[in-house]
Amino acid sequence: MTDWSVWHSEKAGRVQPSVISEMMYLVKERRALSFTAGEPSVDLFPLDGLKEAFNKAFSDPSVLSYHPDNAGLKELREWIVQWMAEDKLLPPWVSAGNVILTNGSQEGVNLIAEALINPGDVIMTESPSYPEAMGTFRKEGARFAPVLVDKDGPDLNAMEGVLQRERVKCFYTIVNFQNPTGCTTSDDRKARVLELAKSHGFFIIEDDPYRNLRLEGEPTDSYIRMAGSDDRVIYLGSFSKILAPGLRCGWLVAPSSLASKLVELRVSIEISLSALVQRAVYEFLKCTDLKSHLESLRSVYRKRRDALVSALREHAVPLGVRFDVPKGGFFLWGEIPGVENIYELAKFAILEEGVGFIPGKPFYPDGAGPEGSMRLSYAKVSPEEAKEGAVRLSRAIQKFREIEAALSQSGLAQLRK
Amino acid sequence: MTDWSVWHSEKAGRVQPSVISEMMYLVKERRALSFTAGEPSVDLFPLDGLKEAFNKAFSDPSVLSYHPDNAGLKELREWIVQWMAEDKLLPPWVSAGNVILTNGSQEGVNLIAEALINPGDVIMTESPSYPEAMGTFRKEGARFAPVLVDKDGPDLNAMEGVLQRERVKCFYTIVNFQNPTGCTTSDDRKARVLELAKSHGFFIIEDDPYRNLRLEGEPTDSYIRMAGSDDRVIYLGSFSKILAPGLRCGWLVAPSSLASKLVELRVSIEISLSALVQRAVYEFLKCTDLKSHLESLRSVYRKRRDALVSALREHAVPLGVRFDVPKGGFFLWGEIPGVENIYELAKFAILEEGVGFIPGKPFYPDGAGPEGSMRLSYAKVSPEEAKEGAVRLSRAIQKFREIEAALSQSGLAQLRK
Repeated sequence: MTDWSVWHSEKAGRVQPSVISEMMYLVKERRALSFTAGEPSVDLFPLDGLKEAFNKAFSDPSVLSYHPDNAGLKELREWIVQWMAEDKLLPPWVSAGNVILTNGSQEGVNLIAEALINPGDVIMTESPSYPEAMGTFRKEGARFAPVLVDKDGPDLNAMEGVLQRERVKCFYTIVNFQNPTGCTTSDDRKARVLELAKSHGFFIIEDDPYRNLRLEGEPTDSYIRMAGSDDRVIYLGSFSKILAPGLRCGWLVAPSSLASKLVELRVSIEISLSALVQRAVYEFLKCTDLKSHLESLRSVYRKRRDALVSALREHAVPLGVRFDVPKGGFFLWGEIPGVENIYELAKFAILEEGVGFIPGKPFYPDGAGPEGSMRLSYAKVSPEEAKEGAVRLSRAIQKFREIEAALSQSGLAQLRK
Repeated sequence: MTDWSVWHSEKAGRVQPSVISEMMYLVKERRALSFTAGEPSVDLFPLDGLKEAFNKAFSDPSVLSYHPDNAGLKELREWIVQWMAEDKLLPPWVSAGNVILTNGSQEGVNLIAEALINPGDVIMTESPSYPEAMGTFRKEGARFAPVLVDKDGPDLNAMEGVLQRERVKCFYTIVNFQNPTGCTTSDDRKARVLELAKSHGFFIIEDDPYRNLRLEGEPTDSYIRMAGSDDRVIYLGSFSKILAPGLRCGWLVAPSSLASKLVELRVSIEISLSALVQRAVYEFLKCTDLKSHLESLRSVYRKRRDALVSALREHAVPLGVRFDVPKGGFFLWGEIPGVENIYELAKFAILEEGVGFIPGKPFYPDGAGPEGSMRLSYAKVSPEEAKEGAVRLSRAIQKFREIEAALSQSGLAQLRK
């Protein structure tokens, strides 16, 4: 067949295959034990409730038409405003008119990127950060200004350094239980970042899919509320982590003048979302005690996190593996010292030992992280599987190190490079 | 609140509000009789079958996870290949690997536009053509080279003229019962356009949502099959017009090297579509006699078309209104002579007489069509409503002309301009 790649747009050339998708696909194909997925466990989906909600949604056949409101079902947008207000996340200017339903948060990131980024514009991101979001900004031609994170969020000195060098248009941040490091930005840091946003004139894109999966400690404030009437924060929320990602239902909150442009972009990208899905999500939320659903999720994830932490301490730490213990979300961020190619180790672990994780490299916007970093998700892993998975992972690390050592002695490693 | 429009990307500046969405919204708000919607009638949705199909889909809870195949559910893609092959639409190189499921055809257009168009690239389109598709190409910075259509499709002399002047990258065409004119490209024209595509080196984007809604005459061949091993045709199909648009489920067929790039773009735009929806559509198709469903759709639409045609002949033709009778699809394309501002007439008709249609102007890529053109859809209009709608439309035209005449006499029309 013809190779049409010379016909591709510059944009197409900037898009790369997703390493996360690749690993998840490989894990599924090999039926491996999986620490790969940043998604909730199948056994925790509120299956019966959602099924009933879809049946209810069908009682209005017009949900199968094009939905006349391209921002999404108004009742669900109003529910979201109410829910966020109860959680003290919103400034007074937000109403349902500022909320746009999305095909998951990723669509929110894309709408924002298409609306704000010209090729060459600078996006400041945490380093490491979520590769698929960075990929979307990269698609639109953004350059990245990475700011290292520690356990309290972005390093402010590093941020000030960036702002002296670069004219930054947006700061993209995952505020709670960050993907991949698990860190949460403290409210003190948020206040300081907001001051910088004002003085240097940049937008903040506050991505917050894990907020309701806090396993210990007190909830934090939000950038969007703390900014008050200074409406330079766009908030991204999602039902993917607390209901089910296969619904494809998230939302964003944006200032009015931007929101209408995002809706125009939505129409040109895909007209509208499924009104059926939006109606079903709304019917589900109306009839569900969401707070107790969230409490039961948290109690399961707490056990899973703790089980994985102790299994790794038993089996992987003796091999030199280091990791942070997150206070919520899905991810452990770790490092395997002395690994020369983490991507090859990740494939080796799936193919040879039947255990999958995500190599850390793609999480660094400039590719300049430590070689041995990795992301482990406990979201879909029972305590028993965590133990078995830690054993397999440790075996994979040992074997891979032996192979790397043997190759290096034989001089083949040089050839391979 | 702050006006952030100076922050918008160039792309955002190229996107305009959709006139079709505006008219559909206004019609719904005013509960007007509607000739606006290019969508199937609610009473023709296979509601019970779809409801059952969703219930079946829920029997596999993994449909609520991220779908591991970002091209979409493989079983449904295989079903589509089989279905298209039976309809003799496919060349031998097509397999399920060339099929990507989409959130409706519009997402297919967007993926193609993002993959192929650099700002300044030239898209050849029929004139008039579908505004939302043109809007998507415009978003990516395309320039348009319009080619007028007649009842057999694009005018070949006009096309050759364009190709002498411009380096065209793609030709976007709606092959059957075109939106808005209702014309169908004859196979002779297709053969000639394919020759031009080969000699001038451009892609053909064959958009074909109405194929199965032929109300008379014989089915035509497809560009993608006629091109054979010359894989420069991308085919867009949709379940929106034959099942329900609220599902948001369509597909595209692309050459392999392009298909993988389109999937990478999809991930960065929204990760994946709802596996639940895809599974439900597949479960529905597996258990449905689709051919007889289509036959019953056609028999209803045939009656609706004929009723609207005769109502217009009775009430509107005496006012000078002209229109073409399509052999399928949803649309009558007409002209109201002597109207100075069709957009104002369209709003007047909704607000004053309770009847909606789509003004023709936005369908012209260069805005240079006759002022009085309009699109009337009979898809959602029963024979009784067609009669009432034609009466209202005629009254609106008469009143509007009287107002325009009065304004013109008083000299106010000049002031208004």
